[in-house]
Amino acid sequence: MAIPASLRQDLCDIPVLEDPGSLRMRSRDFFWFSPILKETLDDKRADIVVVPRDKADVMRVAAACARNRVPLTVRGGGTGNYGQAVPLAGGVVLDMTKLDQVIWHRPGAGRFGAGARMLDIDRALAPAAHELRFYPSTRQHATIGGFIAGGAAGAGSCTWGQISDPGAVLAVEVVTIEEHPRVVELRGRDVLKVMHAYGVNGIITEVEVPLAPSHPWCERIAAFPSLAAAARFAHAFTECDGIAKKLVTVHDPQVVPYLRRLAPYAGPGQAMVIIMVSEPQAEALELLAADHGGEITFRRGAEEARQAAFAEISGLQPLYEFTWNHTTLHAIRIDPSITYLQLRFPPANNLELVDWVAERFRDEVLLHLEFQRRFGKVTCSSLPLVRYRSAERLDAIMAELDAKGVAVSNPHTFVLDNAGWKRVDAPQAEFKRMADPYGLMNPGKLKHWQAEDMQAIA
Amino acid sequence: MAIPASLRQDLCDIPVLEDPGSLRMRSRDFFWFSPILKETLDDKRADIVVVPRDKADVMRVAAACARNRVPLTVRGGGTGNYGQAVPLAGGVVLDMTKLDQVIWHRPGAGRFGAGARMLDIDRALAPAAHELRFYPSTRQHATIGGFIAGGAAGAGSCTWGQISDPGAVLAVEVVTIEEHPRVVELRGRDVLKVMHAYGVNGIITEVEVPLAPSHPWCERIAAFPSLAAAARFAHAFTECDGIAKKLVTVHDPQVVPYLRRLAPYAGPGQAMVIIMVSEPQAEALELLAADHGGEITFRRGAEEARQAAFAEISGLQPLYEFTWNHTTLHAIRIDPSITYLQLRFPPANNLELVDWVAERFRDEVLLHLEFQRRFGKVTCSSLPLVRYRSAERLDAIMAELDAKGVAVSNPHTFVLDNAGWKRVDAPQAEFKRMADPYGLMNPGKLKHWQAEDMQAIA
Repeated sequence: MAIPASLRQDLCDIPVLEDPGSLRMRSRDFFWFSPILKETLDDKRADIVVVPRDKADVMRVAAACARNRVPLTVRGGGTGNYGQAVPLAGGVVLDMTKLDQVIWHRPGAGRFGAGARMLDIDRALAPAAHELRFYPSTRQHATIGGFIAGGAAGAGSCTWGQISDPGAVLAVEVVTIEEHPRVVELRGRDVLKVMHAYGVNGIITEVEVPLAPSHPWCERIAAFPSLAAAARFAHAFTECDGIAKKLVTVHDPQVVPYLRRLAPYAGPGQAMVIIMVSEPQAEALELLAADHGGEITFRRGAEEARQAAFAEISGLQPLYEFTWNHTTLHAIRIDPSITYLQLRFPPANNLELVDWVAERFRDEVLLHLEFQRRFGKVTCSSLPLVRYRSAERLDAIMAELDAKGVAVSNPHTFVLDNAGWKRVDAPQAEFKRMADPYGLMNPGKLKHWQAEDMQAIA
Repeated sequence: MAIPASLRQDLCDIPVLEDPGSLRMRSRDFFWFSPILKETLDDKRADIVVVPRDKADVMRVAAACARNRVPLTVRGGGTGNYGQAVPLAGGVVLDMTKLDQVIWHRPGAGRFGAGARMLDIDRALAPAAHELRFYPSTRQHATIGGFIAGGAAGAGSCTWGQISDPGAVLAVEVVTIEEHPRVVELRGRDVLKVMHAYGVNGIITEVEVPLAPSHPWCERIAAFPSLAAAARFAHAFTECDGIAKKLVTVHDPQVVPYLRRLAPYAGPGQAMVIIMVSEPQAEALELLAADHGGEITFRRGAEEARQAAFAEISGLQPLYEFTWNHTTLHAIRIDPSITYLQLRFPPANNLELVDWVAERFRDEVLLHLEFQRRFGKVTCSSLPLVRYRSAERLDAIMAELDAKGVAVSNPHTFVLDNAGWKRVDAPQAEFKRMADPYGLMNPGKLKHWQAEDMQAIA
């Protein structure tokens, strides 16, 4: 679409980008992990990228889009995997990364501009010995607003669960897309109205979250003779309430070679467990690993691990960049035919099901397990690598996993209706009608919504 | 027994107490919660109380007792309930409370003199925003050494489990009872050699534990229509991984009147839940309580709660002093015929068993529940009040509970053999042979030991 002159005029002096390179780069996220999304989303483009400097700018953009009925897609760090930042109908991409303030923090909580990158937040909190409870493996680029809008879990989930758990997000501030935009503060359970809505329920401008007083997280890698042994250790370790931990990731022996720089830390055919643990308790961890036949092959102290994460030293990147969906990134770089799935194992029999998946799909579905707490119990999720054959085969795999009791979230769809949207127990649709009455927020992202909306306007 | 002159000479200038009042008071702990222990232990007396000023003094006392074959009983704050501090065979009581140094602390860990009181440790750690992970309700008087030797859990267990869990104690320093005492450092799993050994396995002089970076713990009381509703809420709340918490205690409606100063915070027939939660997440807690039919009847902010605990303000004592075994203390003050039991409910069906106990024993066994994490799962333990009828009836109750699957630890015995001693998976007996070769540490505490030992010496 062509950008109406009246929109340009309404934007006034707010910085914009219109060169083809910027339009392309800021219309993308990591959807290309999926061959199916890659085909569908690759050519989607913003017509203009707007880069607000502050909340007043955001409100002017919201008003301008409402007045001119121009689609608006909100973009954080662009680290999502389901096209959260891809403008399906063109129009404006709103780059939020200048709203990056630490608004305040005190013991146990902090409030941040939605565009603040999570690593930068932790940098700012470090002198106060506090930190974000969770971060995705994309901590360096991901924004807190984008994570709340489209994320779920990450490093920290082995202790704190998921970001949709009770109390995990304290408040969210949202700007509505209207001629006279409103600033809405959602607190308590109302935050669920915008969480996992992938940015279609208003523009998140500020986020308030509980913080964790920080532990000195050191890094360890342990090698195990098999996936089963590694998984049993990881489960037992995550159940050790008395050992403070930030990350517990298990890699199948077949995954290890894709993690190039880590490959030397496991022998041929060995599984690998990546751990971040409170440094004074590393000894307790190592004893438990030995009990399970594990051997510690890599150790990095907390101070050095911190420096690696904060890019204060060169050398091996932080180990969390070899976990969660970074695993897929490493693998695709080596073998572009690889894609992935999203699985959750039920706590009652997660280890048995892990064994079953490994046996059933052998070299087609390569497991890595992210251990976490879910509603007071320990279990694991997985973003397994998949050697891609066809969309049909992918569907067949998912159906078989689902039938067996492994919960599947399909990461190969960009529409929300069958993904996050309907699973959250909150009046998201009602809120959208209020926050985005003209249905301008990334139209197409909600399939059924668009139909309803068109009727409403007509 | 008469104290040999040679012992006196060996003690040299180490401070001692010999007046009848001191001998009586320092030969006691809270064993009198049990009518059975009260009868057995009430007349046990030290012949002399020795108050070492430092580790060198401790070693001189150990050597003196070994040389003169005088029994030695180690005493911390005297807050135990099973005669841990009661010298069954007289002799020396070693009062450790002058060894109260904060030896060092750094993020995530600290090392303390065994005689340091737990509240004082937290006072010292407060400027560094760290705290002990656990404390018993007797935090004000209990020493860290005594807690390691004879404690198990307390405030903090809803997050961190128990002190015998892997990694929960990093190291213990022990002085042996020999003519030439040795200082032994136990690290890793070796700490189990002295934990829950009630001071008969050497003199604990220093303790190294992981610390928790501290949250701002505020206090809440919620009232519920029934014990069952309160227990279900407390279970669900403890399962909320995303809400940082320090204490979750449920009181049966029949217990509430005994907690005099708290009684106004529950209506007639209402159960009560006492909570310490990270202040920024109190709202999430209150929402969950409302879901379960609970009403918040008391709120105290984190700063005020801290001041109350640190005795910087007058007024209501900290709420944890109405939980765990303090409950029994409050009840006995009102009704001296009350005693208590120690129960652990299995995680798989704890709530069903709670219902069963409440129904089966109605006004004879009054439950209060301490919710905690055990090996990665949420469950509850209980120190229920019991309207005492006879030792036989107490045995019958315990047998019935045990048969139903509720784990019972008998708090009405002062011998270790059937209590903590045999349950810990560590070579405690072997260690005792090394640390106390003459069997001088509170002889009588280990029934079978004494027999073996006598043979060995004979």
